[in-house]
Amino acid sequence: MSIQGLSINLATVRPQYSVAQAVDACLALGITAIAPWRDQIQAIGVKEAASIIRSNKIRVTCLCRGGMFPAADKTGLAAAIEDNKRAIDEAVAIQADCLVLVVGGLPKGSRDLPAAREMVADGLAAILPYARERSLPLAIEPLHPMYAADRACINTLEQALDVCDLLGEGIGVAIDVYHVWWDPNLYKQIARAGAGGRILAHHICDWLVPTRDLLLDRGMMGDGVIDLKSIRAAIEKAGYRGPQEVEIFSSENWWKRPGEEVLSACAERFLTTCHLQDKLAIGE
Amino acid sequence: MSIQGLSINLATVRPQYSVAQAVDACLALGITAIAPWRDQIQAIGVKEAASIIRSNKIRVTCLCRGGMFPAADKTGLAAAIEDNKRAIDEAVAIQADCLVLVVGGLPKGSRDLPAAREMVADGLAAILPYARERSLPLAIEPLHPMYAADRACINTLEQALDVCDLLGEGIGVAIDVYHVWWDPNLYKQIARAGAGGRILAHHICDWLVPTRDLLLDRGMMGDGVIDLKSIRAAIEKAGYRGPQEVEIFSSENWWKRPGEEVLSACAERFLTTCHLQDKLAIGE
Repeated sequence: MSIQGLSINLATVRPQYSVAQAVDACLALGITAIAPWRDQIQAIGVKEAASIIRSNKIRVTCLCRGGMFPAADKTGLAAAIEDNKRAIDEAVAIQADCLVLVVGGLPKGSRDLPAAREMVADGLAAILPYARERSLPLAIEPLHPMYAADRACINTLEQALDVCDLLGEGIGVAIDVYHVWWDPNLYKQIARAGAGGRILAHHICDWLVPTRDLLLDRGMMGDGVIDLKSIRAAIEKAGYRGPQEVEIFSSENWWKRPGEEVLSACAERFLTTCHLQDKLAIGE
Repeated sequence: MSIQGLSINLATVRPQYSVAQAVDACLALGITAIAPWRDQIQAIGVKEAASIIRSNKIRVTCLCRGGMFPAADKTGLAAAIEDNKRAIDEAVAIQADCLVLVVGGLPKGSRDLPAAREMVADGLAAILPYARERSLPLAIEPLHPMYAADRACINTLEQALDVCDLLGEGIGVAIDVYHVWWDPNLYKQIARAGAGGRILAHHICDWLVPTRDLLLDRGMMGDGVIDLKSIRAAIEKAGYRGPQEVEIFSSENWWKRPGEEVLSACAERFLTTCHLQDKLAIGE
């Protein structure tokens, strides 16, 4: 049995599992796609990770993450560009569908958001040829505006697509519902992203009310207020039918539970609150 | 001596002062404008509040707040509309420059953000004639997207101005830097707001890194990453030269300090990090 269309971002079970353990636990539940983080891959070595993934016929919906371009000076930006090329190499080695980019916020001490945004565009332009030569799509992930200062100064789908349009082929967006659900322009921009062939990934979780921590209080799908099915319907209508990838940072709840319980909840909630009913998600 | 162009939103010294005490403490520092909240006014009665304000020649930059329209049913929406009319009466009684509206988030149990936004537009349309008859401008305050679920489903200046354009005269926006500083369209929308004569208020504080609480961890101007002078310059260029109103919710820092220390910090930081240097802020 397999659950089609579901991927587990390994941040969701970061404290519970290594990559190898996560793959086994996913397969036991019929989940055949994952998205690891670079440090998780590096902990066992890229070769070993690639071997685990290949031998288990696992799909890798993305590698998390490149980006983090804005820096205090040109040396810093150059270092970020080099590091992103290594991330591209790693994503290629594990046959990831794309490399997700969290672009970075303000350099330390800076209040100049337009300058940070220019550095991001410069950084992306510098790594894009390297990614194109390796046929690896780059996926800009616009982050919620509450992360503009310290994590990503690309904060809406519109802004990410403007950057994509500037840069041309080989770059698109990762649409994470947590970051974009509130946006009055969301549905218009999803359609625009689809028309441009820019949708490379779809991440899911939920927005809790109240949210007790800016970073580590994401909810399981169904426990919050995001209209997951409407967003999925718009994304499919725009032409993207790839997996939905569960990415939950939850220091006080899901990270404290047994990994198997977390993965079971992901699978169940995916089927009940995220997956559209026009086709079966459970196959043989 | 007076500090021109500075107003204190009384939420900033909520635990320290009543309205009467806050007025005295502001005047002692040369601050001649305030913005009270409805519960602060109601605690002493609207008549008494109006008398204190008038006899001390205090400018009231706004009354906080009306709004909170989305409701589970029509009875709820009707009650919200009635309550907003009372808020308009109170704002008129204390001769406030405008009534600030925090429009409300999702009704309990709802995930339908477009429906909530429609209810907001309906609610605004219902109270606008009442406000016009009393010559009281209504100021929509777009709130940061992190409040979309529970406080306000109008989350960008663009969205607020779209609603204003729909509704016509007598309604504009309160631009609070905390809510809008991250927006890639900020400067374009400030210009648009100015061209339409829609800028009714300018609120200031700062975005701290890290931010430890979604609601109650606002920073004093200069302690965070918001480019306050650039935003002020854009607002003045757009034609608004009214006061900058300090609004800081800070449960773990400023709310724990003596009120006089807080007000002194507001005055000093206003002069050093917010006020533009082309004219004097301290007059006789």
